[in-house]
Amino acid sequence: MHTEILTTGDEVCSGAIVDSNAAHIATRIEEIGIKIERQTCVRDDIKALSGAIKNMAQRADIVIVTGGLGPTVDDVTSQSAAKAAGVELAQDSEALNTMHAFFKKLNRPIKGMNKKQALLPQGSKCLENTIGTAPGFCMAISGCTFFFLPGVPIEMRLMLADKVLPRIAALRGESDDHYMVKTISVFGLTESAVNEHLVDFNEKYPAITLGFRAKFPEIHIKFYLQGNHVKRMENLIESAGKWVYQRIGDNVFSFEEHSMEDEVGRLLRRQKATLATAESCTGGLIAHRLTDVPGSSAYFLCSAVTYANEAKINVLGVSPDTLNRVGAVHEETVKEMAIGVRRISGATYGIAVSGIAGPDGGSDEKPVGTICIGLAAPDYVEGYRFHFPFGDRRMRKLIFATKALDILRRKLISYKFEVESIKLSHKE
Amino acid sequence: MHTEILTTGDEVCSGAIVDSNAAHIATRIEEIGIKIERQTCVRDDIKALSGAIKNMAQRADIVIVTGGLGPTVDDVTSQSAAKAAGVELAQDSEALNTMHAFFKKLNRPIKGMNKKQALLPQGSKCLENTIGTAPGFCMAISGCTFFFLPGVPIEMRLMLADKVLPRIAALRGESDDHYMVKTISVFGLTESAVNEHLVDFNEKYPAITLGFRAKFPEIHIKFYLQGNHVKRMENLIESAGKWVYQRIGDNVFSFEEHSMEDEVGRLLRRQKATLATAESCTGGLIAHRLTDVPGSSAYFLCSAVTYANEAKINVLGVSPDTLNRVGAVHEETVKEMAIGVRRISGATYGIAVSGIAGPDGGSDEKPVGTICIGLAAPDYVEGYRFHFPFGDRRMRKLIFATKALDILRRKLISYKFEVESIKLSHKE
Repeated sequence: MHTEILTTGDEVCSGAIVDSNAAHIATRIEEIGIKIERQTCVRDDIKALSGAIKNMAQRADIVIVTGGLGPTVDDVTSQSAAKAAGVELAQDSEALNTMHAFFKKLNRPIKGMNKKQALLPQGSKCLENTIGTAPGFCMAISGCTFFFLPGVPIEMRLMLADKVLPRIAALRGESDDHYMVKTISVFGLTESAVNEHLVDFNEKYPAITLGFRAKFPEIHIKFYLQGNHVKRMENLIESAGKWVYQRIGDNVFSFEEHSMEDEVGRLLRRQKATLATAESCTGGLIAHRLTDVPGSSAYFLCSAVTYANEAKINVLGVSPDTLNRVGAVHEETVKEMAIGVRRISGATYGIAVSGIAGPDGGSDEKPVGTICIGLAAPDYVEGYRFHFPFGDRRMRKLIFATKALDILRRKLISYKFEVESIKLSHKE
Repeated sequence: MHTEILTTGDEVCSGAIVDSNAAHIATRIEEIGIKIERQTCVRDDIKALSGAIKNMAQRADIVIVTGGLGPTVDDVTSQSAAKAAGVELAQDSEALNTMHAFFKKLNRPIKGMNKKQALLPQGSKCLENTIGTAPGFCMAISGCTFFFLPGVPIEMRLMLADKVLPRIAALRGESDDHYMVKTISVFGLTESAVNEHLVDFNEKYPAITLGFRAKFPEIHIKFYLQGNHVKRMENLIESAGKWVYQRIGDNVFSFEEHSMEDEVGRLLRRQKATLATAESCTGGLIAHRLTDVPGSSAYFLCSAVTYANEAKINVLGVSPDTLNRVGAVHEETVKEMAIGVRRISGATYGIAVSGIAGPDGGSDEKPVGTICIGLAAPDYVEGYRFHFPFGDRRMRKLIFATKALDILRRKLISYKFEVESIKLSHKE
């Protein structure tokens, strides 16, 4: 099934916005085992758009179109589809009813401008939009099935999942066929190292297609599979997941598409523990990521972003002697920072980072990319040093933050639940 | 001049990566006054790629192609171009020389695999790549000029600027024509409000094409102009910039494409002042943004991310009475937070935020989207309250952080330099 994506809109075509809709559609379509052969973006212009639709109809079996279904004059996708199919636009009663229901829910009158959105090409089938004003539609042109969806990402995504993917499955006459994707998130190994560890995967699990995606600083391993027995497929995924874990161990941080900060939060909740952070070079990024997780106030108490040495001394109680003797970027300093933030916050765990994000500030002994991480727990304090000699300032802040969270995560997963009932004492 | 962009690569087509190359090329091309009519992405497949090239050659005057020039077997752009043009590949001596020079600089031997990259379509002209192994090339196919560039963003961007844009200017026979773009960054007005304020701009400055781009939570106003006299064009931009400023005032935060945090940093440096922040709901995002700016350690001292009330009390010295009486999200509380962080850090300015980022935690009196901002300076303390009733948790964190930085920025621009020499006392 030759499948293509067509994005419409001057803003995408002109580079004003980066087209993440096409990437989302491609990902979801490839997840059900269909390759996207081509992506096209055309301006909001009836001649260009209808021409592109006609060409695609000759080449493709399925085309997913997004954008240009809004109420204003520059929304010309419906007209272009009608022109390409050689039909007229007509008021679609299903589309109009859906819009009436939507506006009633908002308690707003339906405007003339919006009524234009219920004009669909003759012979098309309305695809209901339950969260926006623009209905979608599908229609066959020269034997190719076109799905027209709005460009608003949240509406497009919902309609793709609810209206388009089931119809594509039906088109393929494979209503009893199932597609599954499993993502395993990894931090601490390069893509080629992961690859090497899993080199005999295909021999062991021939029914699963293996994929790798780098999402700096993480690697995502993907399983793609297709079959008739959901339970058998789920069992196969579980077995293959365990096999991967045996090979690369705790470098796997999630089998559930959790972010590193989600995962740290989940483990802290499990342990009924709390966290405070002391950040220098990451400049608040660790706290920002932790607090992006809804409900993080249950375990995240505070972060002291002590950029200046005076703040390290005054806020965290780091010893001026230590700073003089070993400097701000050192295992001893970050241990004192971690102890300090744990003390002022009363948190179960304190993590601290101090490093050189660059571009300036490096030396032979401590080059740009050097990061020291301290971890203070009720019964131990540890200091680490690493060097990440790549990327720019932002990439270094990102990998420093991920590394600090990962050190805590590895501690939390090895936490013994037998002792969970013992009250943690705050000794330092 | 009908101009199109062609991106190659399975990873873009399959949605594994979002295609930011196409958006970059489109932006740069539109900046020189040429519209991009269409963007296409095709898989690394000789048949599909040569077919797409042939079609484009029929339609377009200029096509910019990116990707597929690497050394591996799945890099098939050169072969596809040759096939579309009906010519053979041949060793290009200029390409080979450039590569030899590049590998010599790296002190690495040139490999057979890389030599493949010097095979270019007969009749093409090599475009030198000074920072990577893959040379680009340009060639005419059926009267359309194709520019082939590597897919590595940093290489593509440099070659686009150095090799492609001047050739396009020459193609247009407009070697004495100049294109200018000016961006004015705005925060505090909606796009439609900016539009209304500038409704008579075209009447006043007919030589400038006006554009608007929303980059949440900012609005960017764009001037596009073309002409022969650089000086006259610069004067026109300056005059129009002043006119815009008269209309929308200090809602303009940069004429230089600075970010809000760049701008706050620049103003703090000008005043030789320092800053500390106390963050609750923004969770470190303000500090993270401030420290994304290289050299920010010159003025940014620390942030206390006091998520828990205990941290507000223990770290910042907020009065438990205040918290009991008015709650964490209140003008009084953020004033105490701002005073507190200024005291513990010794900074000139302290800014504090506390609000409800959601999705939970809202009430009738303080709905999700409520944000209180406190500002403590040597000679005043102020508290503000706003409500941003849109977006999700991440968008709210973003607009809260921008609003806090913007309040400080507006204070800093009105700072009187006559008093700069007066030593600032730390009274509260």
